[in-house]
This record gives sequence, structure tokens and C-alpha cells, in this order.
Amino acid sequence: MGRLTLDDLVEGVVAGDRRCLGRAITTVEEGDETSWSLLKRLSPHIGSALRVGITGPPGAGKSTLADALVRELRTRDLGVGVIAVDPSSPFTGGALLGDRVRMLRATEDPEVFVRSMASRGCLGGLARTTQEAADVLDAAGKDIVLFETVGVGQSELTVASACDLTIVVLVPEAGGMVQAMKAGVMEIADMFVVNKADRPGADEMEFQLVDASRYLISDGRRPPVLKTSALKDEGLAALADEVLQYREWLHQGDRLELRRKAQAKTRIRELVRSALEEKFWSQAGVDESLSVAAETFRQGEQSLLEVAQSFWLSVREQIAVSDIS
Amino acid sequence: MGRLTLDDLVEGVVAGDRRCLGRAITTVEEGDETSWSLLKRLSPHIGSALRVGITGPPGAGKSTLADALVRELRTRDLGVGVIAVDPSSPFTGGALLGDRVRMLRATEDPEVFVRSMASRGCLGGLARTTQEAADVLDAAGKDIVLFETVGVGQSELTVASACDLTIVVLVPEAGGMVQAMKAGVMEIADMFVVNKADRPGADEMEFQLVDASRYLISDGRRPPVLKTSALKDEGLAALADEVLQYREWLHQGDRLELRRKAQAKTRIRELVRSALEEKFWSQAGVDESLSVAAETFRQGEQSLLEVAQSFWLSVREQIAVSDIS
Repeated sequence: MGRLTLDDLVEGVVAGDRRCLGRAITTVEEGDETSWSLLKRLSPHIGSALRVGITGPPGAGKSTLADALVRELRTRDLGVGVIAVDPSSPFTGGALLGDRVRMLRATEDPEVFVRSMASRGCLGGLARTTQEAADVLDAAGKDIVLFETVGVGQSELTVASACDLTIVVLVPEAGGMVQAMKAGVMEIADMFVVNKADRPGADEMEFQLVDASRYLISDGRRPPVLKTSALKDEGLAALADEVLQYREWLHQGDRLELRRKAQAKTRIRELVRSALEEKFWSQAGVDESLSVAAETFRQGEQSLLEVAQSFWLSVREQIAVSDIS
Repeated sequence: MGRLTLDDLVEGVVAGDRRCLGRAITTVEEGDETSWSLLKRLSPHIGSALRVGITGPPGAGKSTLADALVRELRTRDLGVGVIAVDPSSPFTGGALLGDRVRMLRATEDPEVFVRSMASRGCLGGLARTTQEAADVLDAAGKDIVLFETVGVGQSELTVASACDLTIVVLVPEAGGMVQAMKAGVMEIADMFVVNKADRPGADEMEFQLVDASRYLISDGRRPPVLKTSALKDEGLAALADEVLQYREWLHQGDRLELRRKAQAKTRIRELVRSALEEKFWSQAGVDESLSVAAETFRQGEQSLLEVAQSFWLSVREQIAVSDIS
């Protein structure tokens, strides 16, 4: 691919050109100066896609479900983008990613754009770049952007908090629900799916979730519970219906506006937080001031709190959010 | 226990009164105004104890080893304090703590002060209060303060980074070494112990560790590898010898001074970091500014980075480290 000007890239993305889409997502992943210019230029085109997060414990069949849902949405002529989020785990990361890439090859449909994104040890950064990749797909006119995450963890919560619709996927086995409750994903569910519903216990799990959903009513809406068998392609039409009904519901009143504003708050907060956590402490001036503070503390004249307070006052001007990448 | 003035408490701690010790540690755990005053008053008496961290993967027998080491050190007439660190785990926390408390009852020796400390969901806070509890035991004249941690994780690394001597405990089974390497605890080891050394594979594990220790030479010192069987009380005298030799080595030149300064840096950094992470975002003014920033971003005139930067400039004055508790 030859050299592209920013104008070319913006134009290509908005036109939905696949190569430009890929290039633009790589650009936001790199997070340099160009990436900010690109996003700014794209911003008039961002905002109409529904961002759907699919989350749940490992083994719930999220990849297969995402794949089946995408195919179902495509039969309704909707443009779909998929962002597969891989917090690199030393234990499972590689294998799962491999499985998923194989899985998603099933969607060899030019209107479906799939991108796998792995964290580089920094979950905050991952949450940010996945949202920016979604911005790119949104600007390209995709109707639905699906985020699919591996496992349950803090990264999932962050990803979900930036979605319009969060689908929590569980399997009939009760352990998954306990895991999901522990991980705090029940509270963020806009919709539940009991996947692998051909297995024993599916009705019992459905019953439990319907019961639990009473406590999760938000804005007058109770999260529905659906049963699917992604492998057998059962329940997918009902799920797609539910997703599209949700989209209509969200467009009523100021719901979408409020949710998008909350998402923007999350994104700004994560950006500042990662700047604080990753960049601040490695600045030479900060380390020098920290040494001075440590020396003062060692002299025993001031408490740790007093020393920390003076240190902070002397260095907080040095945190420049623009440093982050 | 009646009302104690701060003077009484300081005097009691310095005299090594057990009830005052317990009360003082509770005070630092609460982390209020009194706790800072107390630590400041104690500071002239802090600095002579050797802080020893015992860490390693779950199942390595750290509690039993700590208990046996304490008894061995007591035969040499050394005053010992033990801080058992329990990052509360939803999976294992309770049971392990129960086991350990039973275990440490074996040391029913008035000169040994044992305190279990559990995190309240905040590892940064835990790291801080364990160090402050060690300060109290140090001020009370204990020669050795032992930190014993459950499992391997970020909390262990933080605890270890504030110790004078870190002992990494492994068992003959190779899996533990892999776990320890993944968790990054090999690099922080000043000493290795192959515990449960009566099991098959102990010599092989010792050989591997001796080999690996070549890469861990620091300040001209190569971490020694010892074999123990804490349950059978074997190898403990050699371990205690090694700990005391290390103490002598540390007192040569400016080693102790340098290490203590590095520890102070870590403690100040953790204090500021937890203030940033826990207090900053919940301030009313910060949330208001964040809403304004989100609104600006939603208007599409500025990039997320520009918005985040303005937000940060407008709120950074509001982070007061003195707010933290």
C-alpha cells in the first residue's frame, strides 16, 4: 500500500474502503500525532453505529455467538464491524486468539470488517484503542460494531462501560453465573444470553437470570434473557430482533445522548488515568523529586504524608496528558 | 483498654508493651490523623529492624517456614515480629488465613508479636499499612520483622520492594518456579529456599535455582539457595545463619542507607498513587469538570486528547494527597 495522505485516509474510511479501514485502525493503535488528527477529522462521521459488547466467562462460547449474530445481522443487510479484544494472558491468550481467528473466518463477507486487537500489557490503553477502532468503523458507516472480549476481568468492564449495549453470555452450568457475579458483570448487562442452551440446565439458568433481572431494572427497562445455541444456529433471529429493538429504545428521548456522554466521560477518564499511571512516574524530574522526598522522610522530621504532599505539590505540574501514546 | 494519650502509646510501643503494640498497629491501619502523628513520634526509634519478606507461590509452605524460622531466631534471643499479609481473595482468602492463624499459635512466645493484616480491596493501601505496622514493631525494638504473604501477585511485589531481604520460597515441583518466574519474583529474590526438600526433585530444583542465580547477581552478591523442611524442622539453623549473615552484609558501606532510601521512594510513590487512583476521581468538582469535558468532546471540535489535556489542566490542583486515608 503506497503513501496515503491524511485526506486520502479520511476519504477512504468514510467511503468504507477496507484497506483504508485497516490502515486507519493501525494508525489509532499506534496512537501517535496522526491518530489524533485522523480521529478529529472523522468525528463528524462518528456516532450512528450501535456499539455492542459481548462479554461473559471463558468458555461461554462468545466467539461462536458473535460470529452467528454477525451472520444473522447480515441477512438483514446491516453493515457490521467486529473488534475482538484480547487482553494478552500469559496462560490462555495465544490459543484463544487462534481459535477465534479461525472462527471468524467463517464470516468471509466483504461487508463485515473483523479486527483482533491485543493489549500490550496495558489494559487502559487497550480500552482506549478499541474505542477508537470502533470510531473508525462507525465513521465508515457500519450500523453495528461488536466488541467481543475474552474472559471476564477489569478490561471487560472498561470495554463494556464504553458500549451502547452490553450482552452478558452465560452457559447452563451454574459456575459461570457465580463467576460473572464475582466479576461484577451482572450489573452492566443490558441483555442476557444463555448460550449452549441445548445442554442440561438451560431452563434452570434462564429462570435464575429472569429472577435476578428484577434487581437490574434501569431506566424502566428489565434486561431480557434469551436462549441460544450458536453452534446449532438456534435463537439467533430472536437475539438479533432484541438487539434492534434495543437500538430503537435507545434512540427514544435523550437516552442515547446520555449514554454517549457517559461513554465520553469514561474515555477521558481512562486517558488521563493511563497518563498518570504510565507516564508520570518515569519522568526524570519526577524521580529526582521523589529522591529528595525520600531523603527528607529518612531524616525523620516529617511524616510520610507530609513528605508525599510536598512531593505532589512540587511535581503535579509535570503531568502532561499530551505525553501519552 | 482505657483511653490512652498519644504520649502513653508512644511510650508503650517503645517499651515493647504488647497491648500498646496491638493498639498502635490498629491505629496505623485506621490511617487517620492520629496514625500520622504516632508514626512521626515513633520515627526516631525506627530503622534498626531487619525487614524480611517471605514470598512464593501458593502451597510453598511459607506460613510453616515463617513459623519455623521465627522459632529458630528466638533460640538466638532475637526479638521477632510477624506481619501476615492477606490480600483478601474471594477464592482462598478465608481458609488460608484460618490455617495460618492456627499455625502461628505455635509461637506462643511473649517476645514474638504476630499480626494478620487483610487488604480491604486496596492493595496499595495494604502495602502502606503493612510497612507502617513494621515501623511500629521496629520502634518497639524487634530485631527482625517478617512479612509473610499469601500467593504470588502484584501485592507481593509491592510488599517485597519495601523489604531489606526478600526470601523466595519454592517447592521441589517445577511448576512453582514457572509461576514465580511469571510473577516476576525471581528478580526480587535476595535468597532462595527450596522448602519441603524431603520430597523428590529437591536436588534438581536446587540445581536449577543455583544455575539461575548466576543471572541475579546484584552488588556483587549472588542469591544463595537453601533447602529446608519446615515441617521436619530441617535446614532452619542454616537459614537463620544466612539471614543474619545477610544482615551483616547489608550493614557494610552504604548498602542499608541506599536500600532504605529506595524503600522510602516506593512508599511515597504508593501513597501518591493511591491518592490519585482512589480519591481524585470521586471528588465532586472533578466529576463536574469531566462532564464539561465530555460535552466538549461530544461536540466534535476537539480531539479526545485535547479535551483530556484541558480537563487535566483544570483539575490537577484539586488532587490533595492529604485527603487519602
